[in-house]
Amino acid sequence: MTQPLRNDTLLRALLREPTEYTPVWLMRQAGRYLPEYVETRARAGSFMRLCKTPALACEATLQPLARFRLDAAILFSDILTVPDAMGLGLYFAENEGPRFERPLREEWAIRDLEAPDPWEHLRYVMDAAAEVRRALADAAPLIGFAGSPFTLACYMVEGGAGGGEFRHLKTMLYDRPDLLHRILAVNAEAVARSLNAQIESGAQAAMLFDTWGGSLTGPAFREFSLMYIQQVVANLIREKDGRRVPTIVFVKGGGAWLEAIADCGCDAVGLDWTADLGAARARVGGRVALQGNLDPSALLASPEAIVREARAVLDAFGPGDTGHVFNLGHGVSRFTPPEHVGALVDAVHEYSRAGRAK
Amino acid sequence: MTQPLRNDTLLRALLREPTEYTPVWLMRQAGRYLPEYVETRARAGSFMRLCKTPALACEATLQPLARFRLDAAILFSDILTVPDAMGLGLYFAENEGPRFERPLREEWAIRDLEAPDPWEHLRYVMDAAAEVRRALADAAPLIGFAGSPFTLACYMVEGGAGGGEFRHLKTMLYDRPDLLHRILAVNAEAVARSLNAQIESGAQAAMLFDTWGGSLTGPAFREFSLMYIQQVVANLIREKDGRRVPTIVFVKGGGAWLEAIADCGCDAVGLDWTADLGAARARVGGRVALQGNLDPSALLASPEAIVREARAVLDAFGPGDTGHVFNLGHGVSRFTPPEHVGALVDAVHEYSRAGRAK
Repeated sequence: MTQPLRNDTLLRALLREPTEYTPVWLMRQAGRYLPEYVETRARAGSFMRLCKTPALACEATLQPLARFRLDAAILFSDILTVPDAMGLGLYFAENEGPRFERPLREEWAIRDLEAPDPWEHLRYVMDAAAEVRRALADAAPLIGFAGSPFTLACYMVEGGAGGGEFRHLKTMLYDRPDLLHRILAVNAEAVARSLNAQIESGAQAAMLFDTWGGSLTGPAFREFSLMYIQQVVANLIREKDGRRVPTIVFVKGGGAWLEAIADCGCDAVGLDWTADLGAARARVGGRVALQGNLDPSALLASPEAIVREARAVLDAFGPGDTGHVFNLGHGVSRFTPPEHVGALVDAVHEYSRAGRAK
Repeated sequence: MTQPLRNDTLLRALLREPTEYTPVWLMRQAGRYLPEYVETRARAGSFMRLCKTPALACEATLQPLARFRLDAAILFSDILTVPDAMGLGLYFAENEGPRFERPLREEWAIRDLEAPDPWEHLRYVMDAAAEVRRALADAAPLIGFAGSPFTLACYMVEGGAGGGEFRHLKTMLYDRPDLLHRILAVNAEAVARSLNAQIESGAQAAMLFDTWGGSLTGPAFREFSLMYIQQVVANLIREKDGRRVPTIVFVKGGGAWLEAIADCGCDAVGLDWTADLGAARARVGGRVALQGNLDPSALLASPEAIVREARAVLDAFGPGDTGHVFNLGHGVSRFTPPEHVGALVDAVHEYSRAGRAK
């Protein structure tokens, strides 16, 4: 594990060091749009069994890298493994998304909540990370990840995705902020521990997904989401094997709060596709790298349109050889034809490499 | 219909004229959170039957005004009545939201699409508007409304809400923008005709709802949504019975594009709850009034919390007696206790009136 990476483009870009081209990876790059993933998942029997079987999670993680010239692997797992390890009883109802058997709404249950020991309760995640790292053989870096404390709380209190309205959580936020703060403090501890264990197990970068922070007002985002993201970032291992471990924070719908997010201590900020990448760079490009932000739906269009839209994203970031990691603005859609991902990855590499030569 | 309004506070605020207090109305103020609405809907037999029966639509429109001291009525109807009038066959599947029997995806069907004559195909909307206006007896103004051309196209192409991903629509946008532009041009004509017929029938203000424009990239929002909103606004009747008919444009998730939206020709811009009302006022307050922007979920909390949050919204807008209409940042949740709406309306009136006296 002390061999130099054969492709460290992603890690350099995240630290705003020069790169020969713009590195690219895609959120949810391992997933249902790949027939080999569908086959692996069928073999696992269920989504959670796939997450909890390191050999299969490793297989799923590596599938997109076997097909496409991606610049990173991201561990195949789910953000809800952390609350599952807290004893909330995660399950997936067919076509209904994730659910918890025991939603977290009673004061006594909230007082009893504890951050789990990842080496005990999330051992399968760490084993998968170690197995992926060995299998990658330093060909490309491995990204570990977790949900933000607030996003996890949304699922934990609601007992599911709640249609995006999150009425139980919002009622708690307005009426009993003390209870929500207690959940968030435990989540922040649990998330930091999980990410650090992933780093100890081989992850070379760490990403926090705040999928639902954008559903808050500005003041509530700062109090209930960003503050706990800051706590997590402050507690992360920042160097491993003599190399900095970059952190990426992605807040879907958080474009309005970009400056505050960029000041949370992270190395890079992920942007969804509604953000203007050029304007974002002007606002914070001197402080953090930016990751994003092609509309995932563009991958449903023809390869010609994909190449055009990919170039538009690179042009929007603008000239220069530092501080941009190409990604989608959200996860790959299950309806994406796999060959469209290949067209995107190649277009990003070719166009950005040509841009550097100018 | 030429009697002066007994409460024209809303119309004055929309035109940035001084008012004694901040007027308040709520998106979806007539709806399932009201038991009397549930009763009316049951009597109608279905949601569409309720929309299409003027006496019942009038009844539903007036229900919240009988309970709360609201400063406006908004016609009870649905944005999808317009595409229904185009022959797409609107229906509501139980617990699945609106659907169209004939989604608009084939080129021949798109070429055949025509803007309906509202006096013929949406007569029930106009009859309801006239009946509400008579029943209001000039006690408060009536707001007419329509969906934005782009938001209507989302439903028309997808055949439903599409889980917010809109993959058929997005594929068309990237691969066949010419077809989408054709739909949008027809929609813009249909929406302007419908709003003008509503104004002729008694509506004293007109509001455009762009529920899904915020799911676009910035350049796509300008090309596929805002441009057609501008066309609609430019074609609206702007004066009736010697009084200006104000127009309100609401783009959910459009905070980043506020300046551009404010320049579309409208009198007021609606903001969702993620926007900072004070910052928004600084950006465009000299040009348009602002409407919003309490988190609808705040109405699920205790009356004490509601009063606190309502005051925070008024404080965020800041001092002065012009240019703010209080509203939610989205529709009233069906889980809202009705008395909470009363607490909100009274808090807005009292606190803003006291603020004017300072």
